[in-house]
Amino acid sequence: MSYHIAVDVGGTQMRAACFPPDQLKPLVINRISTRHPSETPLERLHRVIASVWPQDGEVAAIAVAAPGPLDPYRGVILAAPNIPGWINVPLRQDLEQHFNVPVALGNDANMAALGEWMYGAGKGHHHVLYFTISTGIGGGAIIDDRLLLGAQGMATELGHITVDQNGPLCGCGQRGHLEAFASGTAIAAWVKQEIEQGAETSLPKDRPVDARMVAEAARAGDELSKKAMDRAGRFMGQAIASYLHIFNPSIVIIGGGVSRAGDLLFEPMRRAMHEYVLTPRYLENLTLTTAAFGDDAGLMGALALARSTGLEVVDTVK
Amino acid sequence: MSYHIAVDVGGTQMRAACFPPDQLKPLVINRISTRHPSETPLERLHRVIASVWPQDGEVAAIAVAAPGPLDPYRGVILAAPNIPGWINVPLRQDLEQHFNVPVALGNDANMAALGEWMYGAGKGHHHVLYFTISTGIGGGAIIDDRLLLGAQGMATELGHITVDQNGPLCGCGQRGHLEAFASGTAIAAWVKQEIEQGAETSLPKDRPVDARMVAEAARAGDELSKKAMDRAGRFMGQAIASYLHIFNPSIVIIGGGVSRAGDLLFEPMRRAMHEYVLTPRYLENLTLTTAAFGDDAGLMGALALARSTGLEVVDTVK
Repeated sequence: MSYHIAVDVGGTQMRAACFPPDQLKPLVINRISTRHPSETPLERLHRVIASVWPQDGEVAAIAVAAPGPLDPYRGVILAAPNIPGWINVPLRQDLEQHFNVPVALGNDANMAALGEWMYGAGKGHHHVLYFTISTGIGGGAIIDDRLLLGAQGMATELGHITVDQNGPLCGCGQRGHLEAFASGTAIAAWVKQEIEQGAETSLPKDRPVDARMVAEAARAGDELSKKAMDRAGRFMGQAIASYLHIFNPSIVIIGGGVSRAGDLLFEPMRRAMHEYVLTPRYLENLTLTTAAFGDDAGLMGALALARSTGLEVVDTVK
Repeated sequence: MSYHIAVDVGGTQMRAACFPPDQLKPLVINRISTRHPSETPLERLHRVIASVWPQDGEVAAIAVAAPGPLDPYRGVILAAPNIPGWINVPLRQDLEQHFNVPVALGNDANMAALGEWMYGAGKGHHHVLYFTISTGIGGGAIIDDRLLLGAQGMATELGHITVDQNGPLCGCGQRGHLEAFASGTAIAAWVKQEIEQGAETSLPKDRPVDARMVAEAARAGDELSKKAMDRAGRFMGQAIASYLHIFNPSIVIIGGGVSRAGDLLFEPMRRAMHEYVLTPRYLENLTLTTAAFGDDAGLMGALALARSTGLEVVDTVK
């Protein structure tokens, strides 16, 4: 039997799972902390992969979803901000030498898009747009049944488009990016600012507020919180209208923690999409939906990538 | 000998050219007015194609570049605003029946992108972003050696992304699109407004000003005109930075009448790209250049499309 190993690497933990052929349920899945007093993150990665290695069969390929920026063509981590020492790490080469099987690497938002397309909400679609809204906004695009990577594998930074050059500062240092209006961080920052300016709210005023708390308060009827979700949804919807003009997908999938706010976000988003779209034709046969996989999206994408070995998905261009 | 016929249809005129195999110089090229007192635009199209039909050989395919919106998959003109009566015209079916050869249809901005990629400035690149800046802003994208069309063939309306929701009205009726800041129309409108508010200029105050006049005046040292070109270039450069984050191309090609302004536009554009890009890596190995084909871009793209018969370029998806 020939297995595939999928790995999702984050700043806090790494998860590895071993999948039997044609199944979406792993035979075994293990998690491990990324940081450790006496082991490097790369040694931790070796360890967690080894821990799911099947006793009774062969591994056809390993694929790793990791935070960017990275080079999916060469399989190199360029600079993972949350993982100490991971600058220019030739992950593919290292793992191929260590485990002696083909290895592929993809950035986590791209992998989530790939996973949703292959196994989740986007199944059967040929043109898929995927957003993950959490502390930041990331994304991925499937065009004509292929993952959009770009010349250097740095495409679909979908949160980093300027939607108002006089807007608030983005985490990346630029001003007025979509991420600075509609991410979880942006929702919390806007609420904080409104509270400082004296807005009425049921939210606590003496400790930090996050987007999850805002969504909960909105659900309970807090006006300020409803306004905050509405504002984020509207900016998101307006940006999605622009993205429809750019990509003309047949499905838009929204994942990430903030998407759990549901209609608090989707309702204003839908309205803004209708308001800002160039012609209603872009909305005909368009599906707007939440992601099928929550925290497993990256892992499922890594599985899809592992199973596409020969690895054409990343290897067609170079 | 097997020829390909390329046609470029505009609101004022249609041009048809017959190309021998492997050549970029047509055997014959004819133009004809689109409107005529006793013939419909479709009859005019038949006439101009027949006029370039080769005596001594076969025609392998015909491809037509036409103003959108259109459906490249079905070969149907949906609504050509400048051509009387062209609403839901099944152009492919009509021409295939009339001439008994395979026919393909593409929108003119997409065709220009295809032409520049196959034969012009983008030759050899795998990820190409093309903009045409004239009265409006259109575009096209080559991703992984394939033209981006989208689920319904309506992708890459690159001028219609919101860059400032409080910005000026766009020709499409929405507010603050890139086209409303950086097109020829937008340049002329901004200058007109500044003149009305009393700005000093060498431009005429008693008759309409267009972008070409503004570019000329800027070249001659007129401060208001220099400012106008600088403003358009900066907005364009900032939008291109966003597009680099989305597509990560290896080349950006700028065509259309306004691109003839040269450094007046390219200089501020380049500066804004550097200023607004997420990381300088997006600019490494990136070429920014003017289009190789001027008014022939659509025709050369139609040639590329005709030569890809079996027509996989448009037929892969549906």
